[in-house]
Amino acid sequence: MNRRDFSLRLAGAVGALSLGNTRLGAETLRRPTRTQATSALRVNGDRINAHLTALSEFGKNPYGGVSRTAYSEADKKGRDYVIGLMREAGLETTIDVAGNIIGKRAGSNPALKPLLFGSHIDSVPDGGNYDGDVGVLSSIEVARTLKERNVTTRHPLEIIIFQNEEGGTIGSRAFVGHLPDKDLDQVAKSGKTLRDGIRFIGGDPTKLGTLQWKTGDYAAYVELHIEQGGTLDAEGLNIGVVEGIVGIGWWDVTIDGFGNHAGTTPMDKRRDALMAAAKYVQMVNRVVTSEPGRQVGTVGRIQAFPGAPNVIPGQVQATLEIRDLDQAKIVRLAKKVMDEATKIGAENGTTFTFKETYLSTPAMMNTDVQKVIDSAAKGLNMTTKYLPSGAGHDAQYMAQITPTGMIFCPSVGGVSHSPKEFTKPQDVVNGANVLLQTMLALDAK
Amino acid sequence: MNRRDFSLRLAGAVGALSLGNTRLGAETLRRPTRTQATSALRVNGDRINAHLTALSEFGKNPYGGVSRTAYSEADKKGRDYVIGLMREAGLETTIDVAGNIIGKRAGSNPALKPLLFGSHIDSVPDGGNYDGDVGVLSSIEVARTLKERNVTTRHPLEIIIFQNEEGGTIGSRAFVGHLPDKDLDQVAKSGKTLRDGIRFIGGDPTKLGTLQWKTGDYAAYVELHIEQGGTLDAEGLNIGVVEGIVGIGWWDVTIDGFGNHAGTTPMDKRRDALMAAAKYVQMVNRVVTSEPGRQVGTVGRIQAFPGAPNVIPGQVQATLEIRDLDQAKIVRLAKKVMDEATKIGAENGTTFTFKETYLSTPAMMNTDVQKVIDSAAKGLNMTTKYLPSGAGHDAQYMAQITPTGMIFCPSVGGVSHSPKEFTKPQDVVNGANVLLQTMLALDAK
Repeated sequence: MNRRDFSLRLAGAVGALSLGNTRLGAETLRRPTRTQATSALRVNGDRINAHLTALSEFGKNPYGGVSRTAYSEADKKGRDYVIGLMREAGLETTIDVAGNIIGKRAGSNPALKPLLFGSHIDSVPDGGNYDGDVGVLSSIEVARTLKERNVTTRHPLEIIIFQNEEGGTIGSRAFVGHLPDKDLDQVAKSGKTLRDGIRFIGGDPTKLGTLQWKTGDYAAYVELHIEQGGTLDAEGLNIGVVEGIVGIGWWDVTIDGFGNHAGTTPMDKRRDALMAAAKYVQMVNRVVTSEPGRQVGTVGRIQAFPGAPNVIPGQVQATLEIRDLDQAKIVRLAKKVMDEATKIGAENGTTFTFKETYLSTPAMMNTDVQKVIDSAAKGLNMTTKYLPSGAGHDAQYMAQITPTGMIFCPSVGGVSHSPKEFTKPQDVVNGANVLLQTMLALDAK
Repeated sequence: MNRRDFSLRLAGAVGALSLGNTRLGAETLRRPTRTQATSALRVNGDRINAHLTALSEFGKNPYGGVSRTAYSEADKKGRDYVIGLMREAGLETTIDVAGNIIGKRAGSNPALKPLLFGSHIDSVPDGGNYDGDVGVLSSIEVARTLKERNVTTRHPLEIIIFQNEEGGTIGSRAFVGHLPDKDLDQVAKSGKTLRDGIRFIGGDPTKLGTLQWKTGDYAAYVELHIEQGGTLDAEGLNIGVVEGIVGIGWWDVTIDGFGNHAGTTPMDKRRDALMAAAKYVQMVNRVVTSEPGRQVGTVGRIQAFPGAPNVIPGQVQATLEIRDLDQAKIVRLAKKVMDEATKIGAENGTTFTFKETYLSTPAMMNTDVQKVIDSAAKGLNMTTKYLPSGAGHDAQYMAQITPTGMIFCPSVGGVSHSPKEFTKPQDVVNGANVLLQTMLALDAK
């Protein structure tokens, strides 16, 4: 009730929208113009953070974080909790045939296409409480804020909780018609096939063919997410404006040498697959860092066979992953790695085999949406940085059918996919307010 | 029946023994002196090789070799087969409380201690048909040859098939009283505990305390075995005279870094445990080969955790093994490896932890027995080489209580612990004949 002088004319190019008969609370001193009014809208930050804490109970690990893998009991309970929040926020909530949860809020102009925003609540095994959750709970909070302030946007709003993002952006792939029936027999981390999982969470895997949203069906898609990298945190910045989501190449790498008795085979007579693998791991690092840029290359999995301390490894199985916003660079670096691997093998009579298991193309974010996000953040006096997303997101599939943008908020130390994942409460609130102002600005366009 | 002139006076200092009333077959032209007669004794080579083939049926892999791990059904059946052969060879066969099979043959002088020889028939998983089997079947063939030729040695002879050599020389450790009750709960490759395994093969684990053969109980122990290394094969030699069995040090190595998202963590911000592990593997090779000598060092096991292609490894678990005839060298090299590992860790913020899991002292073979083996081989016109055994053997425990020697026959390419393990039939026969002549020479001492 203690009204503060509304002296600062806030930025944010928000145009016509119908403003309900409501007070705007502490943010306004006198009855504002419509633009001033929506620019001054802020989410209830305490509420988002309380919801984050509440959601963290579903699939909680004894040692912190959650293991709320898609299609698990914890996932189902988490979804039920979130559906409850969506209803409290006045959203008309349904589950589509793929199992994605959608909450709708009518707009004032039925001729306009909906603005879509959201994220996911499933986690990796031993994951954290921010990856996905921040975007989902902030999206719901945006809707609740609009409801509480009786603000009706021009466009219909739709909030989406994509299912099984961590298991391969399954929900968003299905949403845009890119989940063929043959993929449904893949087994998810929960132990269920995608087919059974979709049924488990209320979808209908036999009707995925009916779900093919296309270009023009949505006005835009925006996703708020923790950065996962450590750039914003290290540079003390508030908001990341995502330029694009990197393409990802995965290869299974098999190194064949000759397994033999470790006690009886002289050092100079060995064809040790692990010796070749050790050089390979270092070479990947060298090749990937040999060009300027933000590309990354990783050997995340390695195992020697037969794997006994007294047997020279006859085989090593490993992986190669390369990510960049430039597809050509991924392919070029991978080829260089393979060429260098051949040389390493020749040194001790081992052979390298590379098998491509996954190759996604980079997804560029819409430049207009990027500018709206940047303006919205600056309008809230926040610092911003344009950066790539090194992680994959549902936004990369949405970018195929609608102008798409992503907002990053900082993640302490860049930690993610870990119980230690942490985003400061104020950074969560900042992200949610930028999401709110971005949606309002897009609505005004 | 076609007697060949016995013009060559064979070497081999064989003294008094009682020679039965028998023809010595094709090897003699006229009735020989006793020394000549026993020097001219030869095993039935075809029979040994036929027995090797027959034994290879028990636990046979579809892809070659055997998986006749101790205490498995295949092991039990293989033991029954071998017990049958021992009985055919006239041996009085028993199973001791540890489950070792012992076949006895009386000597002419009851005051003399028995001469013991033998090996094992259990295999590693995916093992071959020669490791252990050659020594066992040759020992039985020696006894059978003596029986057929009605030769009675001065000393009693005992042939022993030690149980579970591959799982940690269990039978020989028990034989000399070095298998404490607490070790009996260890689970063997067959899935049975040592306790249950010993019971399964006819021993009595509650009575191991009664089995403590001591210095003076046996006159000598001799074991014929395939080399497992490739030295004899590479140099085209017939027989290896083992100088000693190397000591073995094992360490579990844990490398802790920081697991993080592989897509979002810049290359220069990583504490990649696998990058440190890669340097470690190469460093072990460098340190071990930095001194002259025949020492070997191996990293046989490695695994990265969590082990996903898109996660920077936060931890790597690996091993270190060092073997040499000189205990001080093992300790010195291990310390150097640990020092160098600390430096590697400092480079990228990872830490190395080494935990010793096994350290056996080298076991030197008796030099007199070595000379007898060398003479026996040379007396058979065979080429010899003195060399260490890089592999562990039951002989290393026997060396604690009796003068012990080992005879090596060549293994093609030095391959062992593999279905590809192969010793040429003639090399098996050569080994058996050297064993026969060695036992006769020791008997005469």
